[in-house]
Amino acid sequence: MADSLDDIFITLKKAQSELAMQNRAAKDRALAAAAAAINRSRAAILEANSRDVENARKGGMKESLVDRLLLNEKRIDSLIEGINTVKEQEDPIGKTQAGWTLPNGLHVERVTVPIGVAAIIYESRPNVTADCAALAYKAGCSILLRGSSTALESNRALVRCIREGIAEGGGIADAVALAESGSRDEVDVILNARDYIDVVLPRGGHELIRRVIENAKVPVIETGEGNCHIYVEPSADINNAVEIILNAKLQKPGVCNAAETLLVHKDALAVMPVLAKKIAGKAELRCDAASKEAIGAPPAALVLKDATEKDWETEFLDYILAVKTVFSCDEAIAHINRYGTKHSEAILTNDLNSAEKFRCQIDAACVYVNASTRFTDGGEFGFGAELGISTQKFHARGPMGLEALTTIKYLVTGSGQIRP
Amino acid sequence: MADSLDDIFITLKKAQSELAMQNRAAKDRALAAAAAAINRSRAAILEANSRDVENARKGGMKESLVDRLLLNEKRIDSLIEGINTVKEQEDPIGKTQAGWTLPNGLHVERVTVPIGVAAIIYESRPNVTADCAALAYKAGCSILLRGSSTALESNRALVRCIREGIAEGGGIADAVALAESGSRDEVDVILNARDYIDVVLPRGGHELIRRVIENAKVPVIETGEGNCHIYVEPSADINNAVEIILNAKLQKPGVCNAAETLLVHKDALAVMPVLAKKIAGKAELRCDAASKEAIGAPPAALVLKDATEKDWETEFLDYILAVKTVFSCDEAIAHINRYGTKHSEAILTNDLNSAEKFRCQIDAACVYVNASTRFTDGGEFGFGAELGISTQKFHARGPMGLEALTTIKYLVTGSGQIRP
Repeated sequence: MADSLDDIFITLKKAQSELAMQNRAAKDRALAAAAAAINRSRAAILEANSRDVENARKGGMKESLVDRLLLNEKRIDSLIEGINTVKEQEDPIGKTQAGWTLPNGLHVERVTVPIGVAAIIYESRPNVTADCAALAYKAGCSILLRGSSTALESNRALVRCIREGIAEGGGIADAVALAESGSRDEVDVILNARDYIDVVLPRGGHELIRRVIENAKVPVIETGEGNCHIYVEPSADINNAVEIILNAKLQKPGVCNAAETLLVHKDALAVMPVLAKKIAGKAELRCDAASKEAIGAPPAALVLKDATEKDWETEFLDYILAVKTVFSCDEAIAHINRYGTKHSEAILTNDLNSAEKFRCQIDAACVYVNASTRFTDGGEFGFGAELGISTQKFHARGPMGLEALTTIKYLVTGSGQIRP
Repeated sequence: MADSLDDIFITLKKAQSELAMQNRAAKDRALAAAAAAINRSRAAILEANSRDVENARKGGMKESLVDRLLLNEKRIDSLIEGINTVKEQEDPIGKTQAGWTLPNGLHVERVTVPIGVAAIIYESRPNVTADCAALAYKAGCSILLRGSSTALESNRALVRCIREGIAEGGGIADAVALAESGSRDEVDVILNARDYIDVVLPRGGHELIRRVIENAKVPVIETGEGNCHIYVEPSADINNAVEIILNAKLQKPGVCNAAETLLVHKDALAVMPVLAKKIAGKAELRCDAASKEAIGAPPAALVLKDATEKDWETEFLDYILAVKTVFSCDEAIAHINRYGTKHSEAILTNDLNSAEKFRCQIDAACVYVNASTRFTDGGEFGFGAELGISTQKFHARGPMGLEALTTIKYLVTGSGQIRP
């Protein structure tokens, strides 16, 4: 029943060239109608989702993962709100970034245009389906949604509503498509479709992202891996430093902007007993010899282990913090540039030289001075909805809004000019 | 004697992190000294080049290719001038593109930073060596130059001067390196060096570019292929249209922005006899039936052939123009989007609707209304030196200046903020 991927690619490409002609009002109308269609189809969506959830439980899925798959009235509210947030955002298309006239009278304009057809390969969360469809539509891009097979019923119901709504709103329903086969081959076909797909975004765990990066022949935006560090200098206020470390580690440890390793200057080790006391019973510490010794007699509730080389390179995504002692800001920077994932890195200091050096030499999307790494987020930065957090340097970096789905075109207007 | 590629990668990465700290004055001083070093070493450079040229001729290289390899006093002048042009350009690094303060007092700045380590894989022209070294240095990037083995002696001599000059100017000589082995393996190692190379640019013919794109695991900027079209509507002035067509085809047929196929609206076929008369003896026409018929009795000097499907997809880079009759602007757009290489496309018209549709729906870096495609060029656009012309939509599009070697970083400055 589902179309072949080749047919879907052709349809998406054609739809995109129509969507590129739509103005903001038309795109917003279609998005509003898509949100309305989801709103009136809550029962059908929840019913489809309950089948996915039932199958997942039968298949032995962990409850924490089932929770990511699960929809309820409140989650549908927030999914609708997400679409409306995208609708309210400025149109990223048709902006003249620069314009000038050459000596021969040719007028050159550099304008933003949609990047074309996007594909997103993601895991079980159905909210990604609605968010990404809305973001792509607003940016004038067609989108191929390739979710996990465990969420197929939910995604089918959502995409049906989104397409119905877009059509009712007078828009281009074919600009949104779901890849339904669920086979692994499907992903390979998408990753090789250079004639059709202009960008692919993997959203999910380490394994998914690696697989996409290693196999894609189409352009990829790498997202989400965050082995983030906090480096504490002697000039930092100890109590404030501990608050920031606790926040960066404990507030939501399963996300990419949580801190994984603490680097402590040898003259700032006084931070360790205070940290040990406050983190005891909440997270495990994996310390090198000097930072372990600085703790002194560990609090009874503290789980304290010896750090290994492997800890420096691990994104725990868990209640675990590795701790390493460094002899200088340079050593901290070298450690971060070696083991980090170019995501979010923080220095806690009152030393201007160190702050400047850290900001300049750390190779990461977001570099913090005296704040928690947990702020790296499109919402926190004020971007509204986000496509994810790019950890690459090519095309897009850091929290990505609509701009990541755009490119530019030079429009050159003449009156018969030829090159002498 | 030459270092292994792994050693070169490590050195380039280290040099780049030092270069990132250099201000504009320091970078310009190093570039000026590099230009001076080339100037005083003309004899050695010409001597090295003459060995390359001699070997190339012994190996049976065509004289047109030998000419691309050849250096002389005048070409060294222009190579030095190229470095000085780059020196005069604005520093692309350290620009604050946006800055704002969040409600919690965190200050966020989006600033431009070097992309890191670039690699360029190119053919025999030694001027690319100097141009790209200068552009990369100005953008705060290290560069690995991988030229053709036929130009190895010339490149060695040039890179020696550039590195000596940079060192004399107080700069970071290790930011410029030459890959010297000349083996094909060397290219594969570069294309897979994800830990070291942040971007690779292929500059050369179709085969080189395809090989890089198909094998690279590092980010690539695709350049240079141009199957460019000119589409003539009935409302265009015939004589002006013919001037533009002749210019786009004949002024320099071997370059990527030259026109390869002419699309003529069926009601604009009156352009054909005028074109046939003027192009006779200068270029061959490969026509479809209707455009051939419109020529009437062909001028004696005209080489006139029947067009085949293969002609629509060929970048001739030669004195050959394919001609196809279309029934509408939509058909012209569909033909271009099918066969074009997203480089430069022109419509000749006085119809506003057609012009707007063409500008909006043609998927290309540069879209012209009533002008020759030959203007797609960093120099013509006023960018100064250029890295090449990107035909992809990802990261950089169209003529690329220094900006293509930059990325951004978010600098977030706080006073102890934690996420609630």
